Amino acid sequence: MRIDRIVKAPHIYTMKGEGVGYFGNAAIAVDRGKIIEAGSREMIEKEYSADDVIDLKDHALFPGLIDGHMHTALAILRGLAQDTNNWMMFGLQPFVQHTGGEDYALGSRLGIMEAIKNGTTTIGDYGDPMEEVCRFINRIGARGNLTRTIREAKQKVYQPGELYEYDREMGEESLRRNIDLFDRWHGKKDGRIRILFGPQGPDFVSRELLLKVQEEAKKRGTRVHLHTQQGSRETEQMMKRYGRRTIPWLRELGLLDESLLAVHLTDATEEEAIMVADSGASMVLCPGSIGIIDGIVPPSVPFQKAGGNVALGSDQAPGNNCHNIINEMKLVTLFNKIKYGDPEVMPAWKALRMATIEGAKAIGMDEIAGSLEKGKRADMIGIDLNKITMKPVYTHPMRNIVPNLVYSARGDEVSISMVEGEVIYRDGKFTKVDEQEILQGMDERVKRIGKEAEEDFYAFSRIHRRLMEEGKL
Amino acid sequence: MRIDRIVKAPHIYTMKGEGVGYFGNAAIAVDRGKIIEAGSREMIEKEYSADDVIDLKDHALFPGLIDGHMHTALAILRGLAQDTNNWMMFGLQPFVQHTGGEDYALGSRLGIMEAIKNGTTTIGDYGDPMEEVCRFINRIGARGNLTRTIREAKQKVYQPGELYEYDREMGEESLRRNIDLFDRWHGKKDGRIRILFGPQGPDFVSRELLLKVQEEAKKRGTRVHLHTQQGSRETEQMMKRYGRRTIPWLRELGLLDESLLAVHLTDATEEEAIMVADSGASMVLCPGSIGIIDGIVPPSVPFQKAGGNVALGSDQAPGNNCHNIINEMKLVTLFNKIKYGDPEVMPAWKALRMATIEGAKAIGMDEIAGSLEKGKRADMIGIDLNKITMKPVYTHPMRNIVPNLVYSARGDEVSISMVEGEVIYRDGKFTKVDEQEILQGMDERVKRIGKEAEEDFYAFSRIHRRLMEEGKL
Repeated sequence: MRIDRIVKAPHIYTMKGEGVGYFGNAAIAVDRGKIIEAGSREMIEKEYSADDVIDLKDHALFPGLIDGHMHTALAILRGLAQDTNNWMMFGLQPFVQHTGGEDYALGSRLGIMEAIKNGTTTIGDYGDPMEEVCRFINRIGARGNLTRTIREAKQKVYQPGELYEYDREMGEESLRRNIDLFDRWHGKKDGRIRILFGPQGPDFVSRELLLKVQEEAKKRGTRVHLHTQQGSRETEQMMKRYGRRTIPWLRELGLLDESLLAVHLTDATEEEAIMVADSGASMVLCPGSIGIIDGIVPPSVPFQKAGGNVALGSDQAPGNNCHNIINEMKLVTLFNKIKYGDPEVMPAWKALRMATIEGAKAIGMDEIAGSLEKGKRADMIGIDLNKITMKPVYTHPMRNIVPNLVYSARGDEVSISMVEGEVIYRDGKFTKVDEQEILQGMDERVKRIGKEAEEDFYAFSRIHRRLMEEGKL
Repeated sequence: MRIDRIVKAPHIYTMKGEGVGYFGNAAIAVDRGKIIEAGSREMIEKEYSADDVIDLKDHALFPGLIDGHMHTALAILRGLAQDTNNWMMFGLQPFVQHTGGEDYALGSRLGIMEAIKNGTTTIGDYGDPMEEVCRFINRIGARGNLTRTIREAKQKVYQPGELYEYDREMGEESLRRNIDLFDRWHGKKDGRIRILFGPQGPDFVSRELLLKVQEEAKKRGTRVHLHTQQGSRETEQMMKRYGRRTIPWLRELGLLDESLLAVHLTDATEEEAIMVADSGASMVLCPGSIGIIDGIVPPSVPFQKAGGNVALGSDQAPGNNCHNIINEMKLVTLFNKIKYGDPEVMPAWKALRMATIEGAKAIGMDEIAGSLEKGKRADMIGIDLNKITMKPVYTHPMRNIVPNLVYSARGDEVSISMVEGEVIYRDGKFTKVDEQEILQGMDERVKRIGKEAEEDFYAFSRIHRRLMEEGKL
């Protein structure tokens, strides 16, 4: 049978089944963006022929990695908000005031390119506006699982303990815009782009709006992507307004179900995490981000034990700093080994499943992505086993490729990336965009942001101003 | 004045003083391997001329990074010993039995090249034998701070709780060999190679031998590089033999002083860590290694608070997995933020100091390395700020280069590395060795190790055998 493409590699991790679905000396047959067969090279070569044969020598093939939660726009402010309590107020705020739409659009291009270079094929972006992100993801050829922020709480400086003031009209308007984005983009570009609904947090929208958002999402068969139990500030707002912590409150409202993608669960108790998992809702865990900004390891282990699906997320670059799911795989294993004082609690293969098939389940995309199986879309990455970090390669009696990917790889082992069977990145270069051209002039642009932010920086920065003065940056 | 070389960069982090010693638009004048001036580009260009001018556009220059503790030989067994309790017995042991001298020599070449690619210029290797390591470090042009293992406990399988059996002759012989290595290599190759004394642990050598080793080290003005309080197995041996935990015992013996480089302190109490720091001894912390193999964050924070110097180490590749001090900088900050639930406890600049000047102090090399200052040897690395992980670059009102290096960089931002003013690595290539030629055939070689280890693997592996059977590797 004549098909579009055959991809061969000495090692393929399909992620089929309960483990990593390894095949040696294997091949994948791709036609019209779809995997029509994945299995032994001999069988595939006998059954199929293709004009385009990609023979990845000394490579391991994996499903494209899934990033469940990102704010790529903020990459324009990378590295400005670590090492401080309350990173948003003391780190980010002075700069945000002076950062405009064009800056953020450029930030998104930066963050998306960085993620792809590190093996991510499904970009779980979240922001406002998202039109530019949709266009860029379309252009670069990636898969997008995109969410527009819905917010009702007025943007102003609140005193500690002050309840957020809601602006009904603003809330309704942001929901309308999310619907509008959905109508224009959902299912478009060969289904590469999917739109979710994004209430910013249970404290940032009213109960009424949150219920309405869920209804609108369900009506359209999409999900609610919600920052959930993300810290003491949220808890304080919820206790004050409703006398309840977030998760029991969500359950009482009927909001905990399969339509919910609960992000962070930063200070959810173990019981609350299990409550979310039991409801069928899924979790996105951003290990690096929450580790850096809060010094916390969220309860993904009990969530998984209760049968819940967890995706990994790289969150944002000012506080976390990189969009690299390979890095997040490493961090989720290390952080949990430390949290539980147990080197066995979170092994490499589990982290790999979170970044692939389990992540796909969590975001509701496992019918099309997350594993290399017949019938799924052909999203995959090749890991170059000749890179020094992957050396040497053992195959018998034990394979060390997965441990080396999770614990040793930096990200530059990703030598090829395909989405819908199309090569979007190869040997350090994007096939459809020019990285250096996009980055060109970025440092000049942020000079302006820095200059304009000067006064606010000196007024609001608590730590960084002192670090600059003391010569520590 | 005519000199050998001028290196220019828009950003230089000298690490002089208490912070990071930043200079903008700066240059470094190098002659006969030494920094003769570091400062403003204008001044240097006026005072000096050189045949060789390296103008690093869009780069930040840092001192070469210092790795205080490595077992590079074990890189030949990379990725075989994670995700299990007792990594040495259950992970490493089945393979070690079948790994020979040539394999280990190749492992060292792998580990040393990997470290240099990630910005390390001072290789703190520890092993047995070390002759090949000395030769390779000499050949590749790096700086070596090298230790030969001294061991008195017989190599055999001990029952849990069984006291190690000492072999006096073996202990004496390994000390003689350490002395011999010292005589042949210490101070050689323009002083690039330095030899320390390496009793494997206070439980692996007798009290008498440990005292003798310290005496021999002091006589020669070098240090004792000792695994110290590295876990419950050691504590059990010490309690059984001497009725004391390691650190108070070392103090009573008079072994705690400036000549001691105490590695790990895995389960040292805070009080014990302070006891070591107070004595003037220094600490090497291997965050990733101890995090992965034990799920523990050792007490480097109280050690530093007590005024002690801490170097970072990448330890070994089977259990930790990579020789990348940039990665260890990230892990020491994240782990301590989590340990203390405080994002401010371990900021980026402190980690950078551990990898440079503080590390140099810890290993007793701060007179020649660890900062870019007049009179020191010219060991430095260039970080390419056009790499996507370092973008964008803010300089005012806050610089984000150090946070981005610590939290975002992967290692491939290192575009140039110099030791003694000589370029040893540039744009992905070593100047004196051929990476691909060295790695060539490595996978074939380890096939033999795997095959021979088969029986022991099935007999001793507790976790990995099951993971292979369940399709999780």
